[in-house]
Amino acid sequence: MKQFVPQWIIEAKRDGKTIPESDLREFVNRFTDGSLPEYQMAAFAMAVFFRGMSGEEKHVLTDAMMRSGDTLSWESLDRPTADKHSTGGIGDKISIPLAPLVAACGVAVPMISGRGLGITGGTLDKLDAIPGYRTSLSVEEFRSVLKTVGCSIIGQTDRLAPADRKLYALRDVTGTVPSIPLITASILSKKLAEGAETLVFDVKCGSGAFMKTPEQARTLADSLVDGARRAGRKATAIIHDMNQPIGQCIGNALEIRESIEILQGAGPADTRKLVLELAVPMLTLSGVASDDADARRQLDAALASGAALETFAKMVVAQGGNGKVADTPAKILPTASFVADVVAPAETADTPQIESVDAETIGRVVLLLGGGRQIATDAIDYAVGIDRLASAGTSVVPGDLLLRLHARSREEAEALIPMALSAFRFR
Amino acid sequence: MKQFVPQWIIEAKRDGKTIPESDLREFVNRFTDGSLPEYQMAAFAMAVFFRGMSGEEKHVLTDAMMRSGDTLSWESLDRPTADKHSTGGIGDKISIPLAPLVAACGVAVPMISGRGLGITGGTLDKLDAIPGYRTSLSVEEFRSVLKTVGCSIIGQTDRLAPADRKLYALRDVTGTVPSIPLITASILSKKLAEGAETLVFDVKCGSGAFMKTPEQARTLADSLVDGARRAGRKATAIIHDMNQPIGQCIGNALEIRESIEILQGAGPADTRKLVLELAVPMLTLSGVASDDADARRQLDAALASGAALETFAKMVVAQGGNGKVADTPAKILPTASFVADVVAPAETADTPQIESVDAETIGRVVLLLGGGRQIATDAIDYAVGIDRLASAGTSVVPGDLLLRLHARSREEAEALIPMALSAFRFR
Repeated sequence: MKQFVPQWIIEAKRDGKTIPESDLREFVNRFTDGSLPEYQMAAFAMAVFFRGMSGEEKHVLTDAMMRSGDTLSWESLDRPTADKHSTGGIGDKISIPLAPLVAACGVAVPMISGRGLGITGGTLDKLDAIPGYRTSLSVEEFRSVLKTVGCSIIGQTDRLAPADRKLYALRDVTGTVPSIPLITASILSKKLAEGAETLVFDVKCGSGAFMKTPEQARTLADSLVDGARRAGRKATAIIHDMNQPIGQCIGNALEIRESIEILQGAGPADTRKLVLELAVPMLTLSGVASDDADARRQLDAALASGAALETFAKMVVAQGGNGKVADTPAKILPTASFVADVVAPAETADTPQIESVDAETIGRVVLLLGGGRQIATDAIDYAVGIDRLASAGTSVVPGDLLLRLHARSREEAEALIPMALSAFRFR
Repeated sequence: MKQFVPQWIIEAKRDGKTIPESDLREFVNRFTDGSLPEYQMAAFAMAVFFRGMSGEEKHVLTDAMMRSGDTLSWESLDRPTADKHSTGGIGDKISIPLAPLVAACGVAVPMISGRGLGITGGTLDKLDAIPGYRTSLSVEEFRSVLKTVGCSIIGQTDRLAPADRKLYALRDVTGTVPSIPLITASILSKKLAEGAETLVFDVKCGSGAFMKTPEQARTLADSLVDGARRAGRKATAIIHDMNQPIGQCIGNALEIRESIEILQGAGPADTRKLVLELAVPMLTLSGVASDDADARRQLDAALASGAALETFAKMVVAQGGNGKVADTPAKILPTASFVADVVAPAETADTPQIESVDAETIGRVVLLLGGGRQIATDAIDYAVGIDRLASAGTSVVPGDLLLRLHARSREEAEALIPMALSAFRFR
């Protein structure tokens, strides 16, 4: 019986040595059950920040974290399963149209999603804007919705990868968040526990994202795909530029509206493009489409026939929500008391084109309107936000609409107009 | 009022930025008072391991740790003050003859020392071998012995640099011990709190020491001297090769005997040389000797006149011990029940010279004889150990004495003969 001395494992990582599988598993298991002190995990995480991890170490860390809680399996299902993970961005409502669209093409999507904090919105918060929609389902309910509808989007339970929750909280206060292997293990441990056979990753890069450069984003994307494959899943990743917000709507109910537009075959071009870009590999890797063109045909058909929208409506109903939202969102979703137009200022006479729209500033405006949480316990106003957001490259003349602020009052809207305007650069 | 966010400080160090003085002080103060979690200090210490610290950061860290407890001052004394710190080694009893020798030359030596753990003996444990000697004095008693005798060697109190005790315990279990700035701050915070105006450092290097190469030892030596000078002290350092044990005696009472031999002007040449090498700068930097040659003359005189030995006897008496130990150590000190000769084996007929004596193995033999602690709460047998240890370079024929084992029984002695022999390489 080999002796387990935690500091030897920390020292080995510190000195760039490879940690044997059994040691790494025990380190994670003891951390999860509380018998390994947090200060040892903190020192280990910082050593990983500096030394990185081999592909095999990362796989073992991910697997140990995944096995710290429940793991789901969909083998009894009559369809392949696929899911998508995005590293998150302003206006990223992609999951909401994507899941029913892919499900309508015969690939089940068991999606476990998160809430937002700070300027980044969460898929669950957006779904909460639909009256009655329950994001908290039992495993049996989740399985049942998946079987009857083909997709289900729910919130994380305490029993899914508890090691990740504990480690993430520790990393957050010990300066050990920005480590590719730790980010990979955090994302993958939860996604693998979900049980989908195919995983598609959407890694954001740019000023509004965690990965600032395309190189950093590529490194994380490769690490996620490698990790998923080591765990026996089919996987691919795209890199998506996050210097601008996604779509024209930012804010919970407003993003549900935009999602429905996409499912109706309409909506902003960039949002539609991103949904399809992620949906295509979910179909091809799952084997329901022979190639990208075939996948694209099936997806277009599901949108054109209304099957995708219908799947969305069924999911909403199956999870307790008002299914009429799919047809008459304006009637069902909460709306803000006051809507203010923000228009191109006089100076744009000389600089008539929008050069860029800063995602972070737009996110901050929505946060200040009340559409997000500054701290985890903040209440969200689902109705507020931004719509009709003009995109980079658009030509404008003074007085043209740049965006609309949906606010709780005229005062709140007017107070944020200068900040909203400051997101735009003209040329 | 600036916000204090501990993870920002960890992140700044992680990213190689300089930590502002006020932030670093607050980080240490909050760690000491318990309001900063240990996991944040652990992550910070690991970041320091990788990024190092600027001279100014190290000074601030040291100063904050020193100020976490009591600090002593000797301004009211009529003599200059000096102390020595050694990074520790097998057979290192240097402090015991050094303090009275330097004191006999007019430089007061307020020495606060430690206990041993593992193969490295502690000065306090050695002094404990003298019947009656009290290592635990109040500050007032310490001051009084220093004033009347000129030197005093006591143990650390809980009130001296408590931040260091807490940080060291954390570093020990988080793989963050071998960091030059952290080692420097640990050593200096205690030594500076002691209040001596001059500090001389004895940095060991070699297989039996913490610093394996002369380069590493030089880096630590420079860091200690730089830190002491930044704190307004006079300081210098020597590098001492620790591939072999120091002197011919290893074990608590046996090392007291060797110390007394040195004070009598005799004893092994290497021990005497090291004592003088450290004593000289204590005299010159303190201003009681004009140069090294002058210092050497004063030291030789103090040994020849018996003044050094007399100062030792006075210190022992002032601290409650039996002063007769200075004249008749064999009668006063505890002795072992059984002494076994370990002699050169037959093979040395072909390889008649001792090439090396491994310090670590010798230390381990003494530990197993009962002369040290495997864990901090172990009791020590003061009588056991090794004497008449032959040194590298000595020519031997089969049957020549290599060392004597002082043991509790014939069985314990004989069981350790093979291990003792294995410390020797012949050529």
